[in-house]
Amino acid sequence: MKLYEELVEHLVQQIEKGLFAAGDRLPSIRSLTRERGVSVTTVQEAYHRLELLGLVESRPRSGYFVRDRAAAAELPSTTATARRPLDISQWEGVLQMLGADKSARVFSLGHAMPDLTGDTLKPLLRLWARRARRGDPAALEYDSLRGSEELRVEVARLAAHSGCQLHPDDLVITTGCQEALFCALRAVTEPGDVVAVDSPCFYGAMQAIKANGLKVMEIPTHAKEGISVEALELALEQWPIKAILVTPTCNNPLGYTLSDERKRALYRLAQRYDVAIIEDDIYGDLSYAWPRPVTIKSFDTDDRVILCSSFSKTLAPGLRLGWIAPGRYRSAVVHSKFVATAASSTLPQLAVAEFIAQGGYERHLRKMRGQYMRNRDQVTAWLQQHMPAGTRISYPQGGYLLWLEFPESVDCVEINRQLENEDYRIAPGALFSASGKYRNCMRLNVSTGMDSRTEQALTSLLQRL
Amino acid sequence: MKLYEELVEHLVQQIEKGLFAAGDRLPSIRSLTRERGVSVTTVQEAYHRLELLGLVESRPRSGYFVRDRAAAAELPSTTATARRPLDISQWEGVLQMLGADKSARVFSLGHAMPDLTGDTLKPLLRLWARRARRGDPAALEYDSLRGSEELRVEVARLAAHSGCQLHPDDLVITTGCQEALFCALRAVTEPGDVVAVDSPCFYGAMQAIKANGLKVMEIPTHAKEGISVEALELALEQWPIKAILVTPTCNNPLGYTLSDERKRALYRLAQRYDVAIIEDDIYGDLSYAWPRPVTIKSFDTDDRVILCSSFSKTLAPGLRLGWIAPGRYRSAVVHSKFVATAASSTLPQLAVAEFIAQGGYERHLRKMRGQYMRNRDQVTAWLQQHMPAGTRISYPQGGYLLWLEFPESVDCVEINRQLENEDYRIAPGALFSASGKYRNCMRLNVSTGMDSRTEQALTSLLQRL
Repeated sequence: MKLYEELVEHLVQQIEKGLFAAGDRLPSIRSLTRERGVSVTTVQEAYHRLELLGLVESRPRSGYFVRDRAAAAELPSTTATARRPLDISQWEGVLQMLGADKSARVFSLGHAMPDLTGDTLKPLLRLWARRARRGDPAALEYDSLRGSEELRVEVARLAAHSGCQLHPDDLVITTGCQEALFCALRAVTEPGDVVAVDSPCFYGAMQAIKANGLKVMEIPTHAKEGISVEALELALEQWPIKAILVTPTCNNPLGYTLSDERKRALYRLAQRYDVAIIEDDIYGDLSYAWPRPVTIKSFDTDDRVILCSSFSKTLAPGLRLGWIAPGRYRSAVVHSKFVATAASSTLPQLAVAEFIAQGGYERHLRKMRGQYMRNRDQVTAWLQQHMPAGTRISYPQGGYLLWLEFPESVDCVEINRQLENEDYRIAPGALFSASGKYRNCMRLNVSTGMDSRTEQALTSLLQRL
Repeated sequence: MKLYEELVEHLVQQIEKGLFAAGDRLPSIRSLTRERGVSVTTVQEAYHRLELLGLVESRPRSGYFVRDRAAAAELPSTTATARRPLDISQWEGVLQMLGADKSARVFSLGHAMPDLTGDTLKPLLRLWARRARRGDPAALEYDSLRGSEELRVEVARLAAHSGCQLHPDDLVITTGCQEALFCALRAVTEPGDVVAVDSPCFYGAMQAIKANGLKVMEIPTHAKEGISVEALELALEQWPIKAILVTPTCNNPLGYTLSDERKRALYRLAQRYDVAIIEDDIYGDLSYAWPRPVTIKSFDTDDRVILCSSFSKTLAPGLRLGWIAPGRYRSAVVHSKFVATAASSTLPQLAVAEFIAQGGYERHLRKMRGQYMRNRDQVTAWLQQHMPAGTRISYPQGGYLLWLEFPESVDCVEINRQLENEDYRIAPGALFSASGKYRNCMRLNVSTGMDSRTEQALTSLLQRL
């Protein structure tokens, strides 16, 4: 990381923590030079970047001031959603985006793939190789239905960071977060039931809802404040909702993190209407703020929250290792897990458990959190310079996904089709809704930052807007 | 393998191939000594074993003769099953047998675990270690939804051994055979539908039927001839059956292999009544006869057979690698696969593909087929000496599972409960039926043969009969 980048990160964190509010004057170039022991050029470059990001404005002869973010890069509008439960109609688009016909030629701007090239991931592969070399037959056996105890011990320990007191026996290891969500939905619903979701909502969760014969009630969601607890209450009042499925921390795709207060309010609502909460925390450990935000599960006194997560975004999706803390729905979840896959792959579990125990996971996270935040800022700055007026951009609090909202006339489904000829793919917003809304939106993966291929692809995209 | 064991195997194969029929005189001790270049003691020991197996009888001053097997060790009786579709009631017993609380102390006589200690499996682990060490990020990515192309190419090549012409694109890699069966059932049924199965039937398939809200129609099955095609026809006539789920080659738990003729008849029946066939071929490559028997899928001219299999029994269950050839139900199967687990673990797929390409899989199979057949004979001989009169024992044509049928008064569910105190577990027959039939039966794993722990456990079991 360059010196000015470190400084940008430092200042962004201070602004985001609220140490400097909108309108506040930021430290002068001279004082930062002294305080941080860097050159004047470095501080100037940092402030220049912050201006591009729309976080800071310079006032002649007065210095740099925190800008009102709303006035700078506009956030996507609060989503206006359907007024009633819907059947989910999207699938072909998801299938195409996932690339059933995966090819090295195709470059995807939308697939939520973490950066897998970093050095901090290498020790995991080494541990894995060592385990395999050792040739212990136990590594080839079925693991217990609940997953390896070594790994459950480590996951329970990590859960303390999000405010949860979990025992290893409270956990079941799954084949990625997808299996966790799938089992959770099956445990708390019957075909025909309604599930409330924040909207836009992760397409994998939506397709699992569809596959189980459920309807979805999409709740309006603000790109910064998150799911509207008020709208959710109205929906609970009006419809026979069985579960609330939500990604309240470093949301996919909007990037919001629900405040602790609103998490607690959402939990109380679930209690009042006696419904289950399925909490997807897959990006939670990638929160830029550390210690990381707590989960809704941390407020759960009556075991109605099913926490679902995985190592797919923090480490690597190819591990196919997730977990579920099913609370009171444990026996139904265990049955679903057995009938779906019987067990998860043994050797990756043992390797990841050892990696966490050696501190490799936290080392990797520390690095990735910083990298992803810088990438968010770098790509956002580029977008603000190049995207047409009226483009709104989310401002995620963790992870590596941006949500772009173009003017109403833009059709991302059509643009995706056009880009196919150039072997580029995007994730059109329509995939994140029950019935193809958000056509003028798209999700953008910034895990590898503004590299040349991303810039080429975005430039191609721009020409079609 | 000792010399006399080799000779036993040689003679058993000749008898099973029909080179010697019941009543035929076998070669004399002298001629075998000459022909095989072994000692008289070796031939005597081999014939002694064959007598214990009930395959051979000695007639004073005349020599050894092939015994009529039916007169020797009686096969389990043809199952008498329910006359109507049933809901599946077993689960707690399955859960207990699977050992949700897995512990090294517990020794399971019933769990269908292959022998993982052989040398021919070691190259797989070495390849896996090499792949991991290489640190290629592609090994950590999501694989394509259908699974790695390398592996699909190899699986398609292997399928030719069972008479199937499959293209790699006809296959989807799954997280074990369990996910294949689960996706297959979801693709061809709606809740409330009826599925016909051979009975006793693998508990994993039964639980997947239960989890999808289906009823099961259990079809009478003979321990040698297999599922009764005649009874199946009556059931198809009478009930709204949507699919036939069957394990026609090296059946679990009965061990039968349906003849080609009956496989074809079953397929024609499915055509006539326009139902799908879900063919579980998980033990097929462990058939003692080589070339291995063909699958029903090999007769499939209208793509109604969904072939499900995995490497869990041939290589190692901890890989969690299976596959499905979904025929005409492909798009529904791909959707089910996506919502259940999104993808299967990448690195194991690449390692197994390389292992097969290098010939490791076929080398391993060659060894295991011989070992499992010897184990069948060794354990059967022990059982015939020690089990109470009236105990019937299956005579599997592949794999490593025996089915024991005790006199009616024996209750294996209760015996299993008693054995718990000694940390032994069995697989009571009740797990293989919809509503707890076969209480006087059990499945026995012989993959590691008559080792000391197995002998101790069986002796303990005997005391309770």
